[in-house]
Amino acid sequence: MARTVLKFGGTSVGDLDRIANVADIVAARAEQGEQIAVVVSAMAGETNKLVALAEGAAGNGLAREQYDDEYDVVVASGEQVTAGLLALALRKRGLKARSWLGWQLKLKTNKSHGKARIMGFDDSSLPDSMDAGEIAVIAGFQGVTEDERVATLGRGGSDTSAVAVAAALNAQGCDIYTDVDGVYTTDPRMVPKARRIKKISFEEMLEMASLGAKVLQTRSVEMAMNHNVPVRVLSSFLKPGEPNPGTLVCAEEEIVEKQVVSGVAYSRDEAKITLFGMPDKPGVSAKLFAVLAQSGINVDMIVQANARGPDRANMVFTCTDRDSPFAKETLEKMKDEIGFDSMEVTRDVSKVSIIGVGMKSHTGVAETMFRALSEKNINIDVIATSEIKISVLIAAPYTELAVRALHTAFGLDAE
Amino acid sequence: MARTVLKFGGTSVGDLDRIANVADIVAARAEQGEQIAVVVSAMAGETNKLVALAEGAAGNGLAREQYDDEYDVVVASGEQVTAGLLALALRKRGLKARSWLGWQLKLKTNKSHGKARIMGFDDSSLPDSMDAGEIAVIAGFQGVTEDERVATLGRGGSDTSAVAVAAALNAQGCDIYTDVDGVYTTDPRMVPKARRIKKISFEEMLEMASLGAKVLQTRSVEMAMNHNVPVRVLSSFLKPGEPNPGTLVCAEEEIVEKQVVSGVAYSRDEAKITLFGMPDKPGVSAKLFAVLAQSGINVDMIVQANARGPDRANMVFTCTDRDSPFAKETLEKMKDEIGFDSMEVTRDVSKVSIIGVGMKSHTGVAETMFRALSEKNINIDVIATSEIKISVLIAAPYTELAVRALHTAFGLDAE
Repeated sequence: MARTVLKFGGTSVGDLDRIANVADIVAARAEQGEQIAVVVSAMAGETNKLVALAEGAAGNGLAREQYDDEYDVVVASGEQVTAGLLALALRKRGLKARSWLGWQLKLKTNKSHGKARIMGFDDSSLPDSMDAGEIAVIAGFQGVTEDERVATLGRGGSDTSAVAVAAALNAQGCDIYTDVDGVYTTDPRMVPKARRIKKISFEEMLEMASLGAKVLQTRSVEMAMNHNVPVRVLSSFLKPGEPNPGTLVCAEEEIVEKQVVSGVAYSRDEAKITLFGMPDKPGVSAKLFAVLAQSGINVDMIVQANARGPDRANMVFTCTDRDSPFAKETLEKMKDEIGFDSMEVTRDVSKVSIIGVGMKSHTGVAETMFRALSEKNINIDVIATSEIKISVLIAAPYTELAVRALHTAFGLDAE
Repeated sequence: MARTVLKFGGTSVGDLDRIANVADIVAARAEQGEQIAVVVSAMAGETNKLVALAEGAAGNGLAREQYDDEYDVVVASGEQVTAGLLALALRKRGLKARSWLGWQLKLKTNKSHGKARIMGFDDSSLPDSMDAGEIAVIAGFQGVTEDERVATLGRGGSDTSAVAVAAALNAQGCDIYTDVDGVYTTDPRMVPKARRIKKISFEEMLEMASLGAKVLQTRSVEMAMNHNVPVRVLSSFLKPGEPNPGTLVCAEEEIVEKQVVSGVAYSRDEAKITLFGMPDKPGVSAKLFAVLAQSGINVDMIVQANARGPDRANMVFTCTDRDSPFAKETLEKMKDEIGFDSMEVTRDVSKVSIIGVGMKSHTGVAETMFRALSEKNINIDVIATSEIKISVLIAAPYTELAVRALHTAFGLDAE
């Protein structure tokens, strides 16, 4: 029998009324004759409350490796509660259901507590239970390490759990129910003319998620792409029966009408660091980025430009705004070793990106983008491109203006 | 190395400050060179909150076997949180510590979800961890069934967890830290002259717990007696270093100065049911109590008296006040089959008991008890005795008067 995985996030299970609504949705789906596994997050607010308790108990003095495993024990309890409650709510509706915790599911992860990666399923009895007609209610966000400790997958990890379960069950799809009714061409709170996308490729969704769209966790899209699990994003706030087509994230081949540009993403959590007067000789850049990588600082865009002096260059790169003070501190300590003259950190910047698989076969996309921005007098600071996206760094106050201009320029506005 | 189990209840871990205080106590104990396992309850109020959620999700319509297993999943999360938090608080103090959940501990229980009984430990790695110098922080109240489901031990089950762990570890003792500083000769809120008992035998403590003293769960005392684990009840509200002798619950042989009567217990959760005109022939009582047992009603005191008519008797018994409406309903349905004339249910009654191993060798104890009550004009309704206790049923408004009178009559008042 066909299997489907459904996933409900924190706001969708935020209280008993919302859980009852989820039970109604699941019951309606189960009536259609599919085998259903439901992955649930903690009730909205619970995870934050548990994180605050863990931080309070540990104080400031604990190293991460002294903290993360017990943090996982505390925080994973949130999903456990929701899984039990939804199983009860389904039984109340006359359905067979049971909850599954990470260790019962045997969802094995590595030992990176707090942000563990899924290694696979180890001889789980989940398929047998589903074959016996039980709806599986799975505590998302959690797995178990080889040495039988609780591990969590990091914020948004329930999406990844859901896709991993769908892949392991060879499910026909994974439906992510959330508080929006799909993936939009851009942030609808910023651009009222944003439209729901009907179908989007894994690659585009991956770029959208990495570049700032918050609907799906990046890793879940990666996993869906690797296992070719079609993911549908749809609303948990509609009643069963109401039209709820959502957005289908699937392989590029299955999308007939390809857009040149599918969406516009933005991120405000950016900082630009400029190192003036770097020695322009082999090995210097390698040393610079090795230092940053070892410090756990994720570098995004990189540009090198000639400086005025001889054998000197200026190096520009971006990292998250959050990381920037630490990056600055790290580089200051290494100033003599790396050999730059001075450093400038600009924190009030944004990254705006256009994404579309159509770029592969269409020319003039970059030109359209740059003209649209220049017509609004928006100065481009740094540019980065991949096969299916172009990102530009601009001054933060221009973010909304840029996103709206690009949304219009690429014909994405709703009529 | 000697091992000791410490147990902290809900009010002792009620917030982060209280948990910090527990960590200080545990740290001080660990400094003395013992191997320590700590069993913790859920933070005060959490269990009630989780029970309310489970009841809310299930509604009224679910049969117990449809409810109890998922109830356990929801409710067991409370102890999980505390265990993680205390492990962090201990690490903050520079100690090696880790949390243990029921399934990690391999604390096997039967399948009576919601009130499961401990079957034993199954190849646990707990002793190895303790030998390696780690303080074990154990989520109380929970175990795991053979088919890998979460099971809870019923209210107060953390005491039982603690004693079970102590027995399995062959620990030198189990110290139950609570919000009182020991076991008292009677309820100190009712009788200001109540005294802390220094030592009490398992048998006496078992009667005290069954008869209404709320300090220890009955099953934990049973288990301590069966495995001869000395249990100390002491205060978690004192700072490390302050005198905190508590009450030692141990084998009778280890108590040199035996009291005739060690304590006075009372219970207000009582009801008396009288069946008038029962046929006075063999098999009728057996049928009556079989019916009640099958309905899950726990019958306590039983008295049969001749009735006026020929071949007729009146049967008097007690059950908990909570069960009495159901007992009434059950018996009304069986009226013709059992063959009684009429029934009376009296709910406003209390049971007052005196307990002491000294009764075995002393005469006149019952006489002293009945005289003390009669001097206060308290009418005795039903009497029940065992080797080490005498219980009487009286009208509820006389409870405090009776307890105080007996406390004085048996020389228990503090000077």
